[in-house]
Amino acid sequence: MDTEQLSMGNCPVGRGLARVGDTWSALVLRDASFGMTKFEQFRVSLGISPNILTARLKALTQAGLLEKRRYSQHPPRDEYVLTQSGRDFIPVLHMIGCWASKHHGEGLVNRLIDATTGVEVKVTFIDEISGQPLENRPLKIGSPQA
Amino acid sequence: MDTEQLSMGNCPVGRGLARVGDTWSALVLRDASFGMTKFEQFRVSLGISPNILTARLKALTQAGLLEKRRYSQHPPRDEYVLTQSGRDFIPVLHMIGCWASKHHGEGLVNRLIDATTGVEVKVTFIDEISGQPLENRPLKIGSPQA
Repeated sequence: MDTEQLSMGNCPVGRGLARVGDTWSALVLRDASFGMTKFEQFRVSLGISPNILTARLKALTQAGLLEKRRYSQHPPRDEYVLTQSGRDFIPVLHMIGCWASKHHGEGLVNRLIDATTGVEVKVTFIDEISGQPLENRPLKIGSPQA
Repeated sequence: MDTEQLSMGNCPVGRGLARVGDTWSALVLRDASFGMTKFEQFRVSLGISPNILTARLKALTQAGLLEKRRYSQHPPRDEYVLTQSGRDFIPVLHMIGCWASKHHGEGLVNRLIDATTGVEVKVTFIDEISGQPLENRPLKIGSPQA
């Protein structure tokens, strides 16, 4: 796959997928949204090999979803913190989770909950412009009318 | 990555990613949402190698997002049609597109529009249960209180 071409193409979906279109990257972002910032936290949580994790952290940093910050000078230690762009992506992951809970929710599966109240949250979509639900609305990707 | 383990794990996000967590699969679903159903349509649209496309169509069919239908007996020809589960996943792709338009929308990029009216649509999320926006609400994945 020519990710570079996809990342600059006309299709916004393709542009997004070029940046976060693999499972490891998405799982790193998920764990970052849980408050993890350190290489070792991600490695242990995901059971991911160090070289793959290094590559994914670098790619997510280059794509602007994570920011690399040095938190210790001696010894030199970096952590990875969600940027605004990264935080904006988290609801996509919650949506994927809600979709999976609906269609593949058999057995023991956790739920998305409000961290303060413990009440379950179900993510659904609306059109921000019209305020209407998206369900059953025919959509396409193209140039909007002037 | 142990996709099978991920697909049956406790985390709904992981369960979803195990099924649609790669770029090719997501692009096939995008094109299916545009009305494409046939192998050759996907192949030409995506510039994807036939063996990768075959694998992705098979995986999406097994995961229940596409249904394989025989539309010609002589010669035998199949097409791939979005199931309800597949249609339910499409807003996730629209969200990824809206995220990319916001954060990586430089230059020529298409927009998500209402197919009937041509008016632009911006996907945003609300909590279906409370009807409230998700923005700034602290969320976590866990067991909801009884």
